[in-house]
Amino acid sequence: MSIKILAFDADDTLWDNETYFREAEDKFCTLLEDYLPAHTIARELLQTEVNNLSLYGYGIKGFILSLIETALRISDKTIPLDVVEKILAYGKELLEKPVHLIEDVEEVLAELKNRYRLVMATKGDLLDQHRKLHKSGLGHYFHHIEIMTEKRQEDYQKLIKRLDIQPEEFAMIGNSLKSDILPVLQIGGHGFHIPYHTTWAHEKIEVNIDHPNFRQLTSIKEIIRHL
Amino acid sequence: MSIKILAFDADDTLWDNETYFREAEDKFCTLLEDYLPAHTIARELLQTEVNNLSLYGYGIKGFILSLIETALRISDKTIPLDVVEKILAYGKELLEKPVHLIEDVEEVLAELKNRYRLVMATKGDLLDQHRKLHKSGLGHYFHHIEIMTEKRQEDYQKLIKRLDIQPEEFAMIGNSLKSDILPVLQIGGHGFHIPYHTTWAHEKIEVNIDHPNFRQLTSIKEIIRHL
Repeated sequence: MSIKILAFDADDTLWDNETYFREAEDKFCTLLEDYLPAHTIARELLQTEVNNLSLYGYGIKGFILSLIETALRISDKTIPLDVVEKILAYGKELLEKPVHLIEDVEEVLAELKNRYRLVMATKGDLLDQHRKLHKSGLGHYFHHIEIMTEKRQEDYQKLIKRLDIQPEEFAMIGNSLKSDILPVLQIGGHGFHIPYHTTWAHEKIEVNIDHPNFRQLTSIKEIIRHL
Repeated sequence: MSIKILAFDADDTLWDNETYFREAEDKFCTLLEDYLPAHTIARELLQTEVNNLSLYGYGIKGFILSLIETALRISDKTIPLDVVEKILAYGKELLEKPVHLIEDVEEVLAELKNRYRLVMATKGDLLDQHRKLHKSGLGHYFHHIEIMTEKRQEDYQKLIKRLDIQPEEFAMIGNSLKSDILPVLQIGGHGFHIPYHTTWAHEKIEVNIDHPNFRQLTSIKEIIRHL
């Protein structure tokens, strides 16, 4: 393999993220349990989030706006305003969460740093991702930070062009087959998939990947053996 | 002058922006006119926005969350939920606004494009700024797009380093003395100030600038004469 750049997804690859969203969603379902059963609320919320995705993008602020919209809709505008106030507070809590690194992340980055150029490539909110990177203390391992609005083939092509390398010199490491792996394989790069224990429903796909540039791992530490 | 890079602020320098926020704020004040006079609501809103700035950053989604928070507070949680629904709708309207270019912008960029490397350097929400750039049709004039979480001296220093030039080869053109001009002059760059007819209260400063690298303009067209 002629890999020169290792690009790491951040949320749920370097640090926990989806867990916090799921905790907030659970609290939201409890808040509205007089109106609908939890699984129906979760489905309604997902619908709102997907509808709003092109407008709000990824990140906490859009999630909170979608929670409020969903609460108004499923209660037919009968919730007390305390509920809205609590949802706003959930948002601020999420934005202030400490960053909890996934096991072995720092050791792996330290080991790979001298052999490759390391990049962080993540979707989401600019300020929030910068804040998490800062809190993580991982900033000095990365040659370049890319915060992307989407992770489609064309987005990776632009990134590779900007990094001034060939697709076969680029490897992406991440927890989402849909966003981190498939588009990268499709443009000729390498993909290392490390599942996280929870995946947002909208990122879930059913697929068997059989591709020479693809590696399925179970933890980030295993990447060392493959490089 | 040995300027190589001209960096343009976007909101209220290339296209209208603050006007739309002020329109939304006026509608918000009308919505709550039974509770407080408009100027008091505006002051309360500004207070909320400034308090939330480090958490929410710049952009429409944070603005909308601050509108909802302010409405709950000044009504002591007595507003009907219709008000919350309307505020959410204002947000979606703002996100879907057409991009209206400021007079002469395209002619000026076309003229300067062959003589300088042009950069767009803006604060705000990643997705929203990319969307506006796309709608503006101005993307092809720019060598580089920089969406910044803040515009302080250190943020400009990082940008200049990334662009691989010296501070004296960098000029910033924008409507905010606080964000576009002063920090750039302080690190040795050039600043061209073009006021916009409305400035967000938090960006307003009272200052007389007397600096060899500073030019006060009244419209973007004038920049041609100075270069």
